[in-house]
Amino acid sequence: MPCIQTKVNVGISPEKEETLKKELGNAIALIPGKSDSWLMLTFEDNCRIAFQGNSQEPAAFVEVKIFGKAPDSAYEALTAEITKILGRELGVGAKRIYVKYEEVQHWGWNGGNF
Amino acid sequence: MPCIQTKVNVGISPEKEETLKKELGNAIALIPGKSDSWLMLTFEDNCRIAFQGNSQEPAAFVEVKIFGKAPDSAYEALTAEITKILGRELGVGAKRIYVKYEEVQHWGWNGGNF
Amino acid sequence: MPCIQTKVNVGISPEKEETLKKELGNAIALIPGKSDSWLMLTFEDNCRIAFQGNSQEPAAFVEVKIFGKAPDSAYEALTAEITKILGRELGVGAKRIYVKYEEVQHWGWNGGNF
Repeated sequence: MPCIQTKVNVGISPEKEETLKKELGNAIALIPGKSDSWLMLTFEDNCRIAFQGNSQEPAAFVEVKIFGKAPDSAYEALTAEITKILGRELGVGAKRIYVKYEEVQHWGWNGGNF
Repeated sequence: MPCIQTKVNVGISPEKEETLKKELGNAIALIPGKSDSWLMLTFEDNCRIAFQGNSQEPAAFVEVKIFGKAPDSAYEALTAEITKILGRELGVGAKRIYVKYEEVQHWGWNGGNF
Repeated sequence: MPCIQTKVNVGISPEKEETLKKELGNAIALIPGKSDSWLMLTFEDNCRIAFQGNSQEPAAFVEVKIFGKAPDSAYEALTAEITKILGRELGVGAKRIYVKYEEVQHWGWNGGNF
């Protein structure tokens, strides 16, 4: 029951999206108990994003939402990995990427809550 | 002070949006103290959403944000109802729908906070 | 490490976006320890938003996400300021604006977490 939502101000081609799906699918396993088999991903490209007043250079806002909790070290590792992925695949600099985490207590799937 | 945000990877026609507005407006009353008279709804259709690596079949990510707290049973009932609505109106299968809840402590309206 | 995400059902011209960037950049300083130098902004215009069943009139859903916590009075002041800005620049009435706050414990930037 994790969800990673990626907003970037650059384009994401369908091919890049496939690559991102695979790589984020691997990355989520850095959170104990989470895997690609429960992962939902959303992608929004060409967003209007400004960071430090600058909306010209590539930038990303990534929201990682997980059911339950995880140790700080897992979030650290996931931030490092997501930052690498977005840098390599979309050319977003590490200093222009925020990764925000939300630990969720109530999460529904298949008509019921976990 | 609830808000239901619906992201789907299928289209939502203006007619369907009207239907969803009515049905979600009724559903929110499953949360004690909440009603359509304070409900904000946002709809995003044709989103890029992948679940379990699959972005072909219909899928939905729904975020329910409420001011304050509610009993687990209310969230259970709302998940069931939202899942039914999205299945019936948009053809999204229950196993492709996440409904995530956020209990909010600070919420502003009309220039001040509740 | 704050982020303000603005969704409105009216258009935001590039010129208005520049104005909003400056004004929200000033407003964030109402939260102790926060400033434009760490602020990320996202803008989504022409969104599908309904409030109290009405999707015709201008409406806005603003999410303020901050790393850590702030006193209630700071959130009060920021709600008042954001509401003024959206009214003046985009013509959204105060009674059609929600400003929702999220206090975040885990937040990454530059490949690591704060």
